Amino acid sequence: MSTYHPLTIDEAVSLARSIPGHFPADAKLACKEIGDGNLNLVFHITDQSGSDKSIIIKQALPYAKVVGESWPLSLDRARIEREALQLQYSLCPGLVPEVYAFDDHLAITVMEDLSDHVIMRKGLIEGVSYPLFAGHIGEFLARTLFYTSDLAMGPQDKKEQVKKFINPDLCKITEDLIFEDPYKLSDNNNYPAYLEDEARDLRENAALHLEVALLREAFLTRTEALLHGDLHTGSIFATPESTKVIDPEFAYYGPMGFDIGAIIANLLLNYAAQPGWTKDEAARRDTEQRLLQTVSDIWQEFEARFRKLWNEEARDPMSGAPGYQDVYIAKVLRDTAGFAGCKIIRRIVGLSHVADIDTIEDEQIRETAQRKALAIGKLLVLNHRSIQTGNDIVRLAKQASQPFEGAVL
Amino acid sequence: MSTYHPLTIDEAVSLARSIPGHFPADAKLACKEIGDGNLNLVFHITDQSGSDKSIIIKQALPYAKVVGESWPLSLDRARIEREALQLQYSLCPGLVPEVYAFDDHLAITVMEDLSDHVIMRKGLIEGVSYPLFAGHIGEFLARTLFYTSDLAMGPQDKKEQVKKFINPDLCKITEDLIFEDPYKLSDNNNYPAYLEDEARDLRENAALHLEVALLREAFLTRTEALLHGDLHTGSIFATPESTKVIDPEFAYYGPMGFDIGAIIANLLLNYAAQPGWTKDEAARRDTEQRLLQTVSDIWQEFEARFRKLWNEEARDPMSGAPGYQDVYIAKVLRDTAGFAGCKIIRRIVGLSHVADIDTIEDEQIRETAQRKALAIGKLLVLNHRSIQTGNDIVRLAKQASQPFEGAVL
Repeated sequence: MSTYHPLTIDEAVSLARSIPGHFPADAKLACKEIGDGNLNLVFHITDQSGSDKSIIIKQALPYAKVVGESWPLSLDRARIEREALQLQYSLCPGLVPEVYAFDDHLAITVMEDLSDHVIMRKGLIEGVSYPLFAGHIGEFLARTLFYTSDLAMGPQDKKEQVKKFINPDLCKITEDLIFEDPYKLSDNNNYPAYLEDEARDLRENAALHLEVALLREAFLTRTEALLHGDLHTGSIFATPESTKVIDPEFAYYGPMGFDIGAIIANLLLNYAAQPGWTKDEAARRDTEQRLLQTVSDIWQEFEARFRKLWNEEARDPMSGAPGYQDVYIAKVLRDTAGFAGCKIIRRIVGLSHVADIDTIEDEQIRETAQRKALAIGKLLVLNHRSIQTGNDIVRLAKQASQPFEGAVL
Repeated sequence: MSTYHPLTIDEAVSLARSIPGHFPADAKLACKEIGDGNLNLVFHITDQSGSDKSIIIKQALPYAKVVGESWPLSLDRARIEREALQLQYSLCPGLVPEVYAFDDHLAITVMEDLSDHVIMRKGLIEGVSYPLFAGHIGEFLARTLFYTSDLAMGPQDKKEQVKKFINPDLCKITEDLIFEDPYKLSDNNNYPAYLEDEARDLRENAALHLEVALLREAFLTRTEALLHGDLHTGSIFATPESTKVIDPEFAYYGPMGFDIGAIIANLLLNYAAQPGWTKDEAARRDTEQRLLQTVSDIWQEFEARFRKLWNEEARDPMSGAPGYQDVYIAKVLRDTAGFAGCKIIRRIVGLSHVADIDTIEDEQIRETAQRKALAIGKLLVLNHRSIQTGNDIVRLAKQASQPFEGAVL
C-alpha cells in the first residue's frame, strides 16, 4: 500500500513505465504537469523515441484552491471518479477514456491520452462545428442514465451503487455554488459591479427562489441514476468526429435532468456569447441557430435512445405500465430545463465562470452577453415545471434573447 | 467478538443479567421466547423475585419464514433497526422504547419492555379508543421525518445517514409485496377464490398500474427522510394514554409519505372491517366516524408540527423560499394518500394480511370488508396526484365505502 503524497514528475514517469504493455521497453518518456492545479495534478507522459505512445496520470489533491483559499476535499473522490469512468466506459466505450490502472491510496488514475482532441469549450469559442456531438452526447446520456437506474438494474444492486457513489464533498460544492450562493449575499459570488441590479434580483426574486428550492431538493434527494455530475463543455474532449466525456469526479446518484441540463446550459452560454466571437452578422446568426439546433437535437437524441432502451431492456416490473414512460420522460425534461437555468445563472454571478463569456474583450458586448445569459437562465428556471417539449427550451431561450437583439447597453 | 448463533433461553438470561444496573443482584430471572418466529427471536425476561423489572432481547434470524419458505435476510438489519430505534428515541423519547445494550455480531438489541402496552391492532379490533394517538403519532412523524431530512441536517451529514441506512433486503420485501405482486400473477399473492374478479382488475387496470409505478419510483429513488418503513398498527404498542413505536427494521431513506400512508392505511383497514366487529349499528357508525376522524387528525397533527419545526428550525438555506413549504407539504400529502392506497390493496390480495379483516368469522361480512378495503385502496391510488387536503383522504374513503353500506353480497 502506498502512502498518499503528491507525485513528483520522476515518480509519474516511473509509474507510467510500470504500466504493463503500454510503452516499449526502450521508451524515452517525457512528462509535463498540465493540470490547472486547483483540484488535481495531471501528468502528460509521452514517448519521445517515436513509438507515438502517451498516457495521462491524474492525481487528486486533498484540497480545492478557489479564490486563493483552500477547501478540503476527500481523496475518495479519486476512487469515485475512477469507478464512474470505468462504468461509463463499459457502457459507452467510444465516448469515454479507457482506464489503464489506478491506485486508490495515491488517489491516482492512469488513463488514455486524449490530446488529439480539444476541450469542447475552446473549440466552440473558436467557432468549430460539432455535427456529430448531439448524437454522441445523446448516446452517452441515454446509456449511462438508463443502465444505472432502477429501470435497468435490480433494486438491490442499484442500492449498493448508490452507497458506493455517496459523494458528500463534491456534492456540497454544487449545492453551495449552484443552489445557494447566487441567491444570497455570499463571498463566493463573483460578478462585476455593473451587474448589481441583476444580482439583487436574484437575491430578491421570490418566484425564482421557489423554483430553485425545488430543483435543489431534487438534487439533494432523488437517486435516479449515476450522474456525471459536472457535464459542461470543459468536461468534454471533442473533434468534429469524436466526443470523449472526462472528469466525472462529481459523480453521484441524482436526478437525470441534472446532466442533460448541464450540457444544454453550456451550449446556451456559448449561444449568449456569440456576439463577442462572431462579428459577421449573418455568420453569427448561423452559429446561433446551429447552437440552438444542437440543444434541441441533444434532447431528441437522448429521448429517442432512452425510450428505445426502456422498450427493449427495462427490467423494472412496473416499467411497462401504460403511460409511465411518457410521465417519466416529461419529468426528466422539466428537470433538464430547470437545472440548465440554474447552471447558466451561476456561471454569470457565482464563483466559477466560463471563458465563452468572460474572455469577450469588449465590455459592452460582454455585459450584453451576461444579461442575455441571465435572462435565459431565469426564464428556464421560472418555467421549468410547465415545459412540455424539447423545443420549449429553445423557444424560451429565443424569447429571453429577443430584447438583446442589436442592443447597446 | 461473538459469533452469530440464535440465543438459547439460558444465554438470553445470562445476557440480561449482564446488563449493568438493570436487574438487582438477587433477581430470579424468568425468560420466555415470545416472537412469532418469522423474522426474529424475542425474549421476554422478568424478575420473579418482586423487583418488577423486565427487559426485552430481540435477535434477528438470518432468514424470513413466509408461507413455509425461507427467504434469506441480512443480519445487518438488526444494526439498522437498532440505530433507527436509538435515533428515533433521541428525537421522541416518550414514543419509542429505550435501547439498553446491543451486540451487532449477534444481531441483538436489548431494550425496554413494553408489555404493559397492547399491540394497537389488537386494541383496535377489541374496540379500544386511543384519543391521544393522532397527536402522538403526528409528533413521531413530524419529528423523525423533519430532523432526518435535508431541511434540518447539513447535506453532508445527511448523505452519511443515507449510506448508513441503505437497506436492500428489507426494501426488496416492500418493493415486491407492495409495489409488484398485487398487480400480476404471483405465487406470493394470497386471496380467496371469491376475490378473483378483484385480483384480475388489479392485474389489468392500466390507470392503476401507472399510479403504482409512480409510487414505486418514489419508494425506490427519493431519499427525503429516515423512514420507519413499516409503520402499521402491528408496529405500535399502545394504551389509551401512551404510544410506543417499535420494530423499525425496514428503516431506510425514502419518501415521507410512505410512513404517514402506512399508519393511515391500517386505520382504514380497521374502518373497513368494522361491520365484522361492532354489531350494533349506531355503535359501529360511531367507531367508523372516530376512525375516519383519527385519519384526518393524524394528517393535521403531523402537518401542524412539521410546519412549526420548519419555521423554527429549518437549516436548509433555500427552505425560506416563499411558497416552498406549501409545495413540499402538498407533495407529502399526495404521497401519503397514494402509499396508503397501495398498503391497503396489498393487505387484501398480497402475501401478508391483517387480522382486522382476516379474522372476521362471517364470510359474507368478511368479503364485504375486503371489497370495501380494495375500493378505498384503489380510489386513493388512482386519485393520489390530485389530493389537496387531508380531508380529501377521508372523503375518498367515504366515497369508496358508500356502495357497501348495508350491502349483502
